[in-house]
Amino acid sequence: MSINQILAPVQDELQQVEARLRQAVQVEYVPLANVFELLIGSGGKRIRPALSILATKFHPTKSEEMFTLAISTELVHAATLIHDDLIDKSSVRRGSPTINSRWSGTATVLAGDFLLARAADIAASIENFRVMRIFARTLMTICEGEIRQDFARAQWPPDRAEYYRHIESKTASLFVAATEGGAILSGAPENEIAALRAYGRNLGMAFQMVDDILDFTADESKLGKPVGSDLRQGTFTLPVFYYLEQDAHARALGDFASVDIERLIDAIRNSPAIAAAKAEAQRAAQTARDALAIFADNIYRRALFDLANYVIERTL
Amino acid sequence: MSINQILAPVQDELQQVEARLRQAVQVEYVPLANVFELLIGSGGKRIRPALSILATKFHPTKSEEMFTLAISTELVHAATLIHDDLIDKSSVRRGSPTINSRWSGTATVLAGDFLLARAADIAASIENFRVMRIFARTLMTICEGEIRQDFARAQWPPDRAEYYRHIESKTASLFVAATEGGAILSGAPENEIAALRAYGRNLGMAFQMVDDILDFTADESKLGKPVGSDLRQGTFTLPVFYYLEQDAHARALGDFASVDIERLIDAIRNSPAIAAAKAEAQRAAQTARDALAIFADNIYRRALFDLANYVIERTL
Repeated sequence: MSINQILAPVQDELQQVEARLRQAVQVEYVPLANVFELLIGSGGKRIRPALSILATKFHPTKSEEMFTLAISTELVHAATLIHDDLIDKSSVRRGSPTINSRWSGTATVLAGDFLLARAADIAASIENFRVMRIFARTLMTICEGEIRQDFARAQWPPDRAEYYRHIESKTASLFVAATEGGAILSGAPENEIAALRAYGRNLGMAFQMVDDILDFTADESKLGKPVGSDLRQGTFTLPVFYYLEQDAHARALGDFASVDIERLIDAIRNSPAIAAAKAEAQRAAQTARDALAIFADNIYRRALFDLANYVIERTL
Repeated sequence: MSINQILAPVQDELQQVEARLRQAVQVEYVPLANVFELLIGSGGKRIRPALSILATKFHPTKSEEMFTLAISTELVHAATLIHDDLIDKSSVRRGSPTINSRWSGTATVLAGDFLLARAADIAASIENFRVMRIFARTLMTICEGEIRQDFARAQWPPDRAEYYRHIESKTASLFVAATEGGAILSGAPENEIAALRAYGRNLGMAFQMVDDILDFTADESKLGKPVGSDLRQGTFTLPVFYYLEQDAHARALGDFASVDIERLIDAIRNSPAIAAAKAEAQRAAQTARDALAIFADNIYRRALFDLANYVIERTL
C-alpha cells in the first residue's frame, strides 16, 4: 500500500495541514521566509502530522487543537532536518540544496532554532498543560540528542545502548509527542493514552532503524548523499552493530580509523547484518501494532496498523 | 546604590534562584553539565530573575510559579549569551573561557539550544496559558533577532530602525517576559500588567543601549573583548548612528570598509555621540520609571525605580 492509500482516511485533514504549514513559516524576514518555504514546500511524508491526527480519532476532538499539534510536530521535524543536514554536511534534501550548503553553520543552526521556537509558539496555543509539557520535554530531549550525536562521533568501541538512546531522543520522542499528545487532546482514557504512547515510541524506533538501514542500502540518487554517510561521519548505526557482532574478522580490525571505508560500507551492505537489523526493526513495528489491540477495529486503527508496515517496507 | 542594595528586598528569593538555577542545569551528559555549571556558577547580575520576582510583589503570588518564571528567564538569557559569544567570537565571559572558544560552532549553538529547550521545559510547569504564550513568543522573537543580526552585518547604509528592532528582540523582549509574566502570575489587573510591560520594555531598551555604549567606553579588561567589538564585527549600534548624524566628515567616508578601524573607534569614543546615546538611554529609563506611577510607593516599586537608575549608571 502506498502512503497515500494508507492515509486516505485523514487526507482532508492533511490537506489542511499543508496550507497551515505554509502559513506557519511565513516570516517577515525574507531570506528566512525563502528557505522555510523551500523546505516546507518541497514536501515530505507528513508522518508526524498524520500520527497526531489519527491519534485523536478515537474520540471527538476539537479540530483546532488537533491541527495545532499536527503542525507543531512537523515544524519540530523540519527544524531537526536543518540541524541534521548541517551535522551530516548533506548538500541536498528533497531535491533542493540544503540550507547549510548555502548559509554559514551559525545561520543554519539559528534557522533551525527559529523553527523550533515557532513550533513552541504555535504549540503554546493548545490549552492543555499536559500536552504542552510533553511538547516542551520533547524539544529538550531532541536538543540533548543532537548534542550527544555531535560529541559521540567515532568513539570506540561503539556503544549500542547509546545508539538506542540516540534514536529514541532523535526520532521516537517526537512520534510519541504526536501520538500521546493526540490521545490526550481527544480526552482518551489513560489506558488508551498509554497504548498510543507505546505505539508511537515503537513506531519511531522502527522508523529510525529503517532509516539507518537505508543509509547503507538505498540508491545514492534517492539519498541525496553518499551511501554509508553515517559511518563516514563516524556515527555507528544498527547495521554496524550487527556486522561487528556477526563478524569476528571485523571486530579484529579494531576501530575503523585505518580501514578502507568504501570496502567496509560495501561489506556491511552485503552482509547478513542488514537482514538482522531489518528483523529488529520489524519486531519494533510489531510491538507498535500490538499496542493497538485495545482499540476496536475502524479506519483509523487500520491506518495506524498499516503505517507500521509501511515504515518497514518503504524504500525511502 | 549597588545592585545588591537595590535588590535587598528580594535577596532571599534571589538566593533561592541561585540554588534552583544550579539544579536546572544539572544534566546527565557530563560535557554539557560542565559548561553549564561554569556559565551559571560564574554569576551574573540576575536582573531578569529579579525583575520577574519584583513584578509579582504587588499582589500575593504562588512562590513556586514566581521562581519558575525567574529561572526560565535567566536560562533563556544564558542561552543567548552562549549564542552571542559565538556570533561575536568572544573568548572570555565572566572571567571564564567561553564555550565557543572550546567547542565547535555547531556544538556551541546546540548547547545554547539545549538551555532554551530546558527553559521552555521548566516554563511549561507554570499553569498559566497567557504566561506560557508570552514565553514561547519571546523565544521566537529572540531567535529571529539572532538570525537578523547574523545576516544584517555590515549593510550600508546602516538602518537605525533595524537597530531598535534588534535590541527590542534581543534584550527588551525578555525583560518584558519577566515583568509582564510576573504581573500576570500575581493576578494583577490589566492596567498594572500594561504598566509592568511598558516598564520592562523601556528598561530593556535602555539596558541594551548602555551595553552598546559600554562596548565603546568600558575597560577592555572588564569587557573581556576588544573595545568597539560590535563595530569590528560590522554591527552598527547607537553611538555609531549619533556619530554619523553629528559628523558630516564621517558620513562622507561612505561605508567603513576602507577606514582605519582603530582610529574610527577612538573617534567615536571621544565624540559627543557617546553623550547623545547615553541621553537617549536615560530617556528610555525615565519612560520605564514613569510607567511605575500607578503603583503605590513600597519597597518593591522603589527597587524597580532604582534599577532603572542602575542600568544607566553601571560601568558593566
